[in-house]
Amino acid sequence: MYGLIGKILCTPGQRDTLTAILAHGTTGMPGCISYVIAHDAADSDAIWVTEVWDSQHSHQASLALPSVQAAIAKARPLIAGFGERVETLPVAGPGLPAPGLPD
Amino acid sequence: MYGLIGKILCTPGQRDTLTAILAHGTTGMPGCISYVIAHDAADSDAIWVTEVWDSQHSHQASLALPSVQAAIAKARPLIAGFGERVETLPVAGPGLPAPGLPD
Repeated sequence: MYGLIGKILCTPGQRDTLTAILAHGTTGMPGCISYVIAHDAADSDAIWVTEVWDSQHSHQASLALPSVQAAIAKARPLIAGFGERVETLPVAGPGLPAPGLPD
Repeated sequence: MYGLIGKILCTPGQRDTLTAILAHGTTGMPGCISYVIAHDAADSDAIWVTEVWDSQHSHQASLALPSVQAAIAKARPLIAGFGERVETLPVAGPGLPAPGLPD
C-alpha cells in the first residue's frame, strides 16, 4: 500500500467549495482504498486529506484521470498553499487489507 | 463526525511492535468509522494514525474500553513522544457517510 497525508490551505472562505470539488473529483479512482477529506477544527481555511492506495503507481496514474484533471483545474484558484505533506506506508485499520501483523 | 490525525514517535526499533499493539487494540470500537495506521515513509520511528468517529463522544468513550486500556498499557513503554495532533471534522470520502455536499 501507499499513503499520503496532506494539509491544503484554502483561499479565505472557499473551504466548503473546495471540499465539494475534492469530494466529487475523487470518487471511483482505481486503486484508491480510502480517501478521507476532513476540515481542520482549529483552522477554518484548512483541509486534511488522508489517502490510502494499493500502490504508488495507482496514485500516480490517478493524476491523469479526466475526473481528477477537471477537479485540479477547478480547485487550483481556491488553493492558497499547502502545509504538511507526509508519504506513508499504510499498514492496518478497518477497511484496509489484512496486514499480516505479528500477534 | 469527529476526527483525529496524529503522529506517534516510537522508541527506536519498536515501530512494528507498537503497530501490532495498535492494530489489535483498536478493532471493534463502537462509533469508529475509520482508523488508518500508517508508517511514515521518511521517519522509521514514526506512525501516523487517522481516525474517523461518528462523534467526539464515541472517541472519548473508546478510551475506557478494556481492549483500548490494555493496548495503552502495552503501548506506553514503546512511545517516545508525539508529533502533530490535529482535531478534524471529517466531511467526505469513500466509506464515510454521505456528506450532503453542495453539487
